[in-house]
Amino acid sequence: MSNPRVVIVGVGFAGLNAAKALRKAPVRLTIIDRRNFHLFQPLLYQVATAALNPSDIAYPIRSIFRRQRNVVSVLLAEVVNIDLDASEITLDDGQTILYDYLVVATGATHSYFGHDEWSEVAPGLKTIEDALVIRSRVLRAFEEAERNPDQADRWLSFVVVGAGPTGVELAGALIEIAVHAVGDEFDAVDPRNARVVLVEGTNRVLPPYPEGLSASARRQLEKLGVEVLTSALVELIDLDGVSLSTGERIEAGTVIWAAGVEASPLGRMLGAEMDRSGRVMVQPDLSVAGQPNVFVAGDLALVEGVPGVAPAAIQMGRHVASAIWADISGENRLPFRYRDKGSLATIGRARGVADIRGIRFSGLFAWIAWLAIHIFYLIGFRNRVFVLASWAWSYLTFRRGARIITGLPKHE
Amino acid sequence: MSNPRVVIVGVGFAGLNAAKALRKAPVRLTIIDRRNFHLFQPLLYQVATAALNPSDIAYPIRSIFRRQRNVVSVLLAEVVNIDLDASEITLDDGQTILYDYLVVATGATHSYFGHDEWSEVAPGLKTIEDALVIRSRVLRAFEEAERNPDQADRWLSFVVVGAGPTGVELAGALIEIAVHAVGDEFDAVDPRNARVVLVEGTNRVLPPYPEGLSASARRQLEKLGVEVLTSALVELIDLDGVSLSTGERIEAGTVIWAAGVEASPLGRMLGAEMDRSGRVMVQPDLSVAGQPNVFVAGDLALVEGVPGVAPAAIQMGRHVASAIWADISGENRLPFRYRDKGSLATIGRARGVADIRGIRFSGLFAWIAWLAIHIFYLIGFRNRVFVLASWAWSYLTFRRGARIITGLPKHE
Repeated sequence: MSNPRVVIVGVGFAGLNAAKALRKAPVRLTIIDRRNFHLFQPLLYQVATAALNPSDIAYPIRSIFRRQRNVVSVLLAEVVNIDLDASEITLDDGQTILYDYLVVATGATHSYFGHDEWSEVAPGLKTIEDALVIRSRVLRAFEEAERNPDQADRWLSFVVVGAGPTGVELAGALIEIAVHAVGDEFDAVDPRNARVVLVEGTNRVLPPYPEGLSASARRQLEKLGVEVLTSALVELIDLDGVSLSTGERIEAGTVIWAAGVEASPLGRMLGAEMDRSGRVMVQPDLSVAGQPNVFVAGDLALVEGVPGVAPAAIQMGRHVASAIWADISGENRLPFRYRDKGSLATIGRARGVADIRGIRFSGLFAWIAWLAIHIFYLIGFRNRVFVLASWAWSYLTFRRGARIITGLPKHE
Repeated sequence: MSNPRVVIVGVGFAGLNAAKALRKAPVRLTIIDRRNFHLFQPLLYQVATAALNPSDIAYPIRSIFRRQRNVVSVLLAEVVNIDLDASEITLDDGQTILYDYLVVATGATHSYFGHDEWSEVAPGLKTIEDALVIRSRVLRAFEEAERNPDQADRWLSFVVVGAGPTGVELAGALIEIAVHAVGDEFDAVDPRNARVVLVEGTNRVLPPYPEGLSASARRQLEKLGVEVLTSALVELIDLDGVSLSTGERIEAGTVIWAAGVEASPLGRMLGAEMDRSGRVMVQPDLSVAGQPNVFVAGDLALVEGVPGVAPAAIQMGRHVASAIWADISGENRLPFRYRDKGSLATIGRARGVADIRGIRFSGLFAWIAWLAIHIFYLIGFRNRVFVLASWAWSYLTFRRGARIITGLPKHE
């Protein structure tokens, strides 16, 4: 009898770690992603803020699995249908693939809470393309100010919506760009006068973190010059700025969306219960109710008390692999248990907050811990070296290495 | 009386060097480009072939002139009109700028010889966006072959049209990608069977180079595995391949255009004679006939015996600066004299051809000379370090650091 066929859809943190944890398993792995690379999402905001290059935080999926012998096939493809009765998935070109085990790990993207029209004026940050759009808009805002000094107030105002880790890190980086990276290079306007506003709907920044860290993060942001507005919901976004539920109106040429979660549409094909954002409720072993050979892992899975962060996705991916291992070995599957290893966020240059196994600290040491952990989890020796070198260069020179406006040239 | 206003349009090699050579001149410089960076064009093919990142070969124009005191303004803008009578240019937003001296250095792009419909199927290589399109197409071709093994012959065939330095370098890099970078990572097909065809209309590769070097380059290309077809004109390009004037038909999933020159449309606003490709005939001092205060430099200028290469553009830019200096000092302008410093091209890994001040050599030493000269002319310490590190890493590992398919995901 031949080895069971395991199909993994999505090579984010969950899918990647499921596949790796199965590397010695007697299975035939098929790995499917619609991109040809694994993306290190936690550093995506650094691409959006011109500190890193896209390929510094992306690694070709084929290269990752080049030496893993039980990987039968790596496919650049999109899954368009899941047939649970036939144990079969369909790809975008009509090809079908049978599975014995299916791991759906296609994640989530940002959500505009029903206001999809805001996506044009307030781009979100989930893909490399998003990051390059944001990078171009931010850099172009300073250029627009230079060409239209009478509109400088608007062009030098930036609003970040959502004060989770991404929003906090973006806001800190925007201030750094304005003050240090481009500050002394304009003639008609002074970017050092830039205004960065961080808007959050709940009553504190970094809402999932311990309250003490939230307070510290807020202090550090304000020290950098970021205006923090909490308990403020966005009611309207247009080309000229943002209107808040507090009645306040912020004129801003650039708005970045760092809020909301909308799960991958593949979740809807699993016949399971979902929450409002489309995340799939799973059994204790991360399988789908009534489908013990179909698993959901990562941001697409809804597990009580487990946040949508990279460490949780890594743990879920490994857990799914262990459940498949258990089946093969004739053992019982164990329930998934999330081990909270802590929280980290960086705030501009040499600042941050950390909560590692209950030990809380902020400032320089939190920043150093953040650097070390992110380098450690990056895939590929080259990426580690280049990211570390980019950080060192930026730290020493106060500059940013990817300060180019790309995409279609203006007026074309 | 205030210093004369010098307006430089285009910050390629010519505009950049004109501005730099004027750094101590008693002038007020306005520098205009529609991109926010200077692009090191000779390495663009390395972005197209996943070896380098866009920002490795691009440098922000503002940063270049940050410390140059006579630069009054750097504008990210497009020039839409030149009024020679009023000595005034108009920008895309309607703003007008008066000049005492105007330097037009907006270069050239590729031309499809009247077959603009080919641009969709056979992208050219002039901008960073072009390079990323080509990178995605090349990398995706291997993925398409993997998903459609019955069409592997077509998807693993690549045609490069035009055997100038860019075409030769692209063809060599494509073979390297197929054989080394991705060769062992596919299951259904073997990229090492890839076919790379270099098509050239004249009777030899690198037509502007000495014949001995052309022959050597051809031998080296063929040794790598590139099929070289000379005296072959392209008659048709479609989604399935290329038809040649020789009657030959090449089925290929990827065609890259590296031929033809079409000068910037700004040349037409100067009221001067032009050649068929739109290059502007200039006076011996590089000024426009009847407009002694308007200069054309770089690829947009047509000067007998001067090729459209970076060293010529650098020399022209400096010459224009010297003519302005001469006017200011009350001296006579000198005629432009091109000093041919030689020719260099690289052919894959550790191979190349060189002709430096009449000394001709090929192979490893030509390759090393090529590396050294390109690092030397790159702008910015960071770019030099990162390019050198990327090359060292690629040389040692046979891999490519920017192997990611970006742009819109497939089927979206």
